[in-house]
Amino acid sequence: MIAGIELGGTKTVVATGTAGGIVHEEWRFPTTGPEETLGRFINWLRERGTPTAIGVGAFGPLGVNPGRENYGRLLATPKPGWSGFSIIEALAAAFPQARVVIETDVNAAALAEARLGAAKGLDDVAYITIGTGIGAGILSGGRLIHGALHPEVGHIKVARQAGDDFAGVCPFHGDCLEGLASGPSMAARWGTPAVDLPENHPAWDTEAWYLAQGALSLLGIVAPAKIIIGGGVSQATGFHLKVEALLKNLAAGYFIPLQDGPYIVAPALGQQAGIIGALLLTSHS
Amino acid sequence: MIAGIELGGTKTVVATGTAGGIVHEEWRFPTTGPEETLGRFINWLRERGTPTAIGVGAFGPLGVNPGRENYGRLLATPKPGWSGFSIIEALAAAFPQARVVIETDVNAAALAEARLGAAKGLDDVAYITIGTGIGAGILSGGRLIHGALHPEVGHIKVARQAGDDFAGVCPFHGDCLEGLASGPSMAARWGTPAVDLPENHPAWDTEAWYLAQGALSLLGIVAPAKIIIGGGVSQATGFHLKVEALLKNLAAGYFIPLQDGPYIVAPALGQQAGIIGALLLTSHS
Repeated sequence: MIAGIELGGTKTVVATGTAGGIVHEEWRFPTTGPEETLGRFINWLRERGTPTAIGVGAFGPLGVNPGRENYGRLLATPKPGWSGFSIIEALAAAFPQARVVIETDVNAAALAEARLGAAKGLDDVAYITIGTGIGAGILSGGRLIHGALHPEVGHIKVARQAGDDFAGVCPFHGDCLEGLASGPSMAARWGTPAVDLPENHPAWDTEAWYLAQGALSLLGIVAPAKIIIGGGVSQATGFHLKVEALLKNLAAGYFIPLQDGPYIVAPALGQQAGIIGALLLTSHS
Repeated sequence: MIAGIELGGTKTVVATGTAGGIVHEEWRFPTTGPEETLGRFINWLRERGTPTAIGVGAFGPLGVNPGRENYGRLLATPKPGWSGFSIIEALAAAFPQARVVIETDVNAAALAEARLGAAKGLDDVAYITIGTGIGAGILSGGRLIHGALHPEVGHIKVARQAGDDFAGVCPFHGDCLEGLASGPSMAARWGTPAVDLPENHPAWDTEAWYLAQGALSLLGIVAPAKIIIGGGVSQATGFHLKVEALLKNLAAGYFIPLQDGPYIVAPALGQQAGIIGALLLTSHS
């Protein structure tokens, strides 16, 4: 038996299934403290059998480089109780025979979309998610990118849209990508939650502008064959086409990967990308 | 015997040596047309023996993904005669027993600096070079990043320095990183070639600002453990410290890889990084 867990900031999804990403049984519950959250997963899983491998996609900051001391451990996080908690030790204590593979939640989702979703069959894929924050998972040459810690794509700087003087909401950087385009940023900028903004509201042009800037940086630095944009704040009709048109305009014919369309696409696995990715991690080298 | 060739836009460097990056013999000559340039290398090498492997670091755009039809082939380039030329076919015809490994020149240099130079022992390194253009090679998790083609870091957009209204010189994008900070950009902006600008000229503050923006995007997207900045336009005294100070200011304490310093460093292998990298490619998986 293979198991997966997607640990999100607010909700947790757990599943049994296959290393090929097929979900057999799935359960969602709110994320609380680490012992309670992992404990619920462990008890649920014990009732179902003995896993040979467990894939984990988790919020960060998180040690994701196997062989480093902090692998599978949450680093300093404002989330109460989680700083320093080792997910991998908790799972190894409960299931000593299981191989445990840990990744960021966005890398797990990127892997799922690249193997079974909107970028099926591609080895070079970026998956941007826009919600409370902005994050990205990156598959490059068939491998998930970690770097010295893991990417923090939400905190790159972006060129301003002409005339935009909104200060941004990032407590660290003000007007980084996340500060100018996350869900809380849209709510603060327009006085209305993103989900309530009409589809013809200029908010979506501004939002698409900043996502096109972020996509351009990803294109220039890791050259994905396709960029997926998901998350709660990406669901306005036509949003992906809008970002693609702006990106092509910015690129001015320069970037070859952009020439085959569509380049900016919606996720195909929806809410299940994370948990499917967690299962797939158990067969990903 | 192992051989290497660094094919640059204006000069070519060829060498015999070891797969560990030790140069035995080296020869530099101007890059001309493809048959003549490769021909000189082939004749020179034949006089020295029969190589078992040849590493190539070349200018682009270039197919660098083994297994794709365009591997080792120049794509559309303004450089006369080179568009569509297959470096790998020319070398395979001359040395059918040799394994040929092709990379971008900046990836070869990044590999050399990561294995033997300024980032020795690190598996997550970016190497930015500033000259006629701006490019970057990226090693991530010990592997060189290709993406769907290869990175084009010079053409990302960057946030403007306050008060800067210089239009930029990139024929495609105007004010991309390369358009605002390459050697030709500095010459156009200040009316003086970069090499002749005094070290206390404000040009270096502007230059450092834009490199800090580029470094921030690399940090956010691939999280290198160290960023090397080299090339002709990076050699003013104190330039790397200036970029690092601006980057730390932009980062505002957020990015963990940045906390161990120095983070922005000069190359250690100087003019030899490219050819050493070409030799190292023959033992890089």
